[in-house]
Amino acid sequence: MVKKTHARLADGREIIYFDESDGAERATSDRRELPPFRLQPTARHDVLQDEWVSLADFRQDRTYLPPDDQCPLCPSTPIRATEIPAHSYDVVVFENRFPSFATMAAAAHADVQAADAQGPGELLLRRQAGVGRCEVVCFTADHNSSFSALTPDRVRTVIEAWVDRTITLSALPHVEQVFCFENRGKEIGVTLSHPHGQIYAYPFLTPRTRRMLDSARSYRERTWRNLFADVLAAELHSGERVVARGDSWTAFVPFAARWPLEVHVYPNNHVPDLPALSEPERAELSWICLDVLRRMEAVFDDTLPYIAAWHQAPVRIDRDLARLHLQLFSIRRGPGRLKYLAGSESAMGAFINDISPETAARLLREAR
Amino acid sequence: MVKKTHARLADGREIIYFDESDGAERATSDRRELPPFRLQPTARHDVLQDEWVSLADFRQDRTYLPPDDQCPLCPSTPIRATEIPAHSYDVVVFENRFPSFATMAAAAHADVQAADAQGPGELLLRRQAGVGRCEVVCFTADHNSSFSALTPDRVRTVIEAWVDRTITLSALPHVEQVFCFENRGKEIGVTLSHPHGQIYAYPFLTPRTRRMLDSARSYRERTWRNLFADVLAAELHSGERVVARGDSWTAFVPFAARWPLEVHVYPNNHVPDLPALSEPERAELSWICLDVLRRMEAVFDDTLPYIAAWHQAPVRIDRDLARLHLQLFSIRRGPGRLKYLAGSESAMGAFINDISPETAARLLREAR
Repeated sequence: MVKKTHARLADGREIIYFDESDGAERATSDRRELPPFRLQPTARHDVLQDEWVSLADFRQDRTYLPPDDQCPLCPSTPIRATEIPAHSYDVVVFENRFPSFATMAAAAHADVQAADAQGPGELLLRRQAGVGRCEVVCFTADHNSSFSALTPDRVRTVIEAWVDRTITLSALPHVEQVFCFENRGKEIGVTLSHPHGQIYAYPFLTPRTRRMLDSARSYRERTWRNLFADVLAAELHSGERVVARGDSWTAFVPFAARWPLEVHVYPNNHVPDLPALSEPERAELSWICLDVLRRMEAVFDDTLPYIAAWHQAPVRIDRDLARLHLQLFSIRRGPGRLKYLAGSESAMGAFINDISPETAARLLREAR
Repeated sequence: MVKKTHARLADGREIIYFDESDGAERATSDRRELPPFRLQPTARHDVLQDEWVSLADFRQDRTYLPPDDQCPLCPSTPIRATEIPAHSYDVVVFENRFPSFATMAAAAHADVQAADAQGPGELLLRRQAGVGRCEVVCFTADHNSSFSALTPDRVRTVIEAWVDRTITLSALPHVEQVFCFENRGKEIGVTLSHPHGQIYAYPFLTPRTRRMLDSARSYRERTWRNLFADVLAAELHSGERVVARGDSWTAFVPFAARWPLEVHVYPNNHVPDLPALSEPERAELSWICLDVLRRMEAVFDDTLPYIAAWHQAPVRIDRDLARLHLQLFSIRRGPGRLKYLAGSESAMGAFINDISPETAARLLREAR
């Protein structure tokens, strides 16, 4: 059982402890002097791509690769106050101090809309306030650990935190999509090495999710079937890209993988998002997450920079079309070598993968 | 006047010299012993995103950051044979030895199509041969130079090479789109530091181009106007994001820029692709390319990793909708700091920019 405690940081940001034992004391208050938390991120419409791009120009000053003894995600000590005003924690979630989306941006929402509803820029220069929320999820108080080194019980607690935050953030005004993810490794720009993930609550559907829903919609119109269910069935039928199987989950390298190491983890039943997972599904999920991640880390004899991305159904629409799944991928393509996004990928969106999905799946099955 | 000479490398690949003087002797032949050039890249359909992903698993062995005295793009010397069997050159183009697309893949085309036209994978597991071509464009024989250090006359020769190759590659069977680009800087994965660009001839429309055409099509249906013309007019009307203007070209930071430093260069008249440029447009292009790139390099006191991407109209369709333009962008967001693509960008396609487009435009206007 997870015990949840709410508190506030010195600048008013919310912090939520998820403790594995009932006895955890959470009375400590944040004694830092912080400037007030008042940021107004915005988003602009790219009319050529029909996609929203966020603008958060105050983030330039965010904490950048601090030395280990300056880590803001470690517990506070008597001589140093961090973002977490407690001497230890199990899992803790708090609002990001440098967010790309913020609830308080809502105040500017009406103004921005009004300014754009006139003039020749009406179609071409659209913007909206960056209403939403960005949260940080610390997986453990141990600075030198990693997600793959967590116990299954701890992963279970992280899952409960994701579920809790998905429910809460989905209920916020203007939020259309909740995205739980982890960036790991300085090679992909992680500025804090302490084991942590993030949650973004977006005020729009992200481009990838929109395309996925468009594909699922046209597939249903054509076949009367669910695209995600049929993709999973085709992978199980072929078997050559399957990496791990459980009663409730299947992990496979996608047929058209973009990244040298990429694994998708699907629930075997149709589940729209993390809160909709049953008890047994949550229990097995902690096992399969660890199994797949440890296999990925074992393939190359090297550190594994990776992104773990939870695709959830949108908050308001198409919840019957979209299926929850985890996308795990690394930019490592060999020991000491990274896959970079260059002209074809970054400018044209046309990916070139150097490792065949079947080879990747074989390496992952044989790993450990 | 540019003198063009065709030859073949030892493994049968084509090489084309673009010489600025008529007297250049091109009789030297490639004396290396190379394995035959027989590669079969493929492409797979990502059914969730409705996008093609290329698979070129033989590229893992490609030349990777060789020492300067082993550069394969320098001219050959009496004691070392490189990819260019000549003791000097102005601009030279040759087929990439490790291509993501190849004309000879056409032989496999029919087989691949036949294999997929049956079974339950018909909609879900589609693939095609990677028919097309990948070429390397060396801008100068000087290993330690860069595009921004070229003379306007040399840029003019590079433009003639792009025009020539666009015409030739557009005429190849199965080719749908020709993409001239330059990746610069090891921070974005460039494996050879010698000043060079690349050309990809794709057997499909790239995802970004498809979305751009979709946007232009729905804009025309709605307004009876051309989207690119109106974007340019809106930027000229506002002026706050314009970086440089000429009689034939305008450079501006896009309203919804994804990258810390991003500049789009549009022809002032409607031109679908590089071969359609008039003489005066080509002449001014060499000036504005150098001007914008030098400004970008001057903004941060640091090396500038960048991508220069020529968006051209597709070969066969929508040539009235699409307008030629150059997209220049850098991942540098400050001295010593890079913009990385992490979870939001890589997994969701939702970009977050740390520098406002108006600030970037001001920095670029003030630079030099």
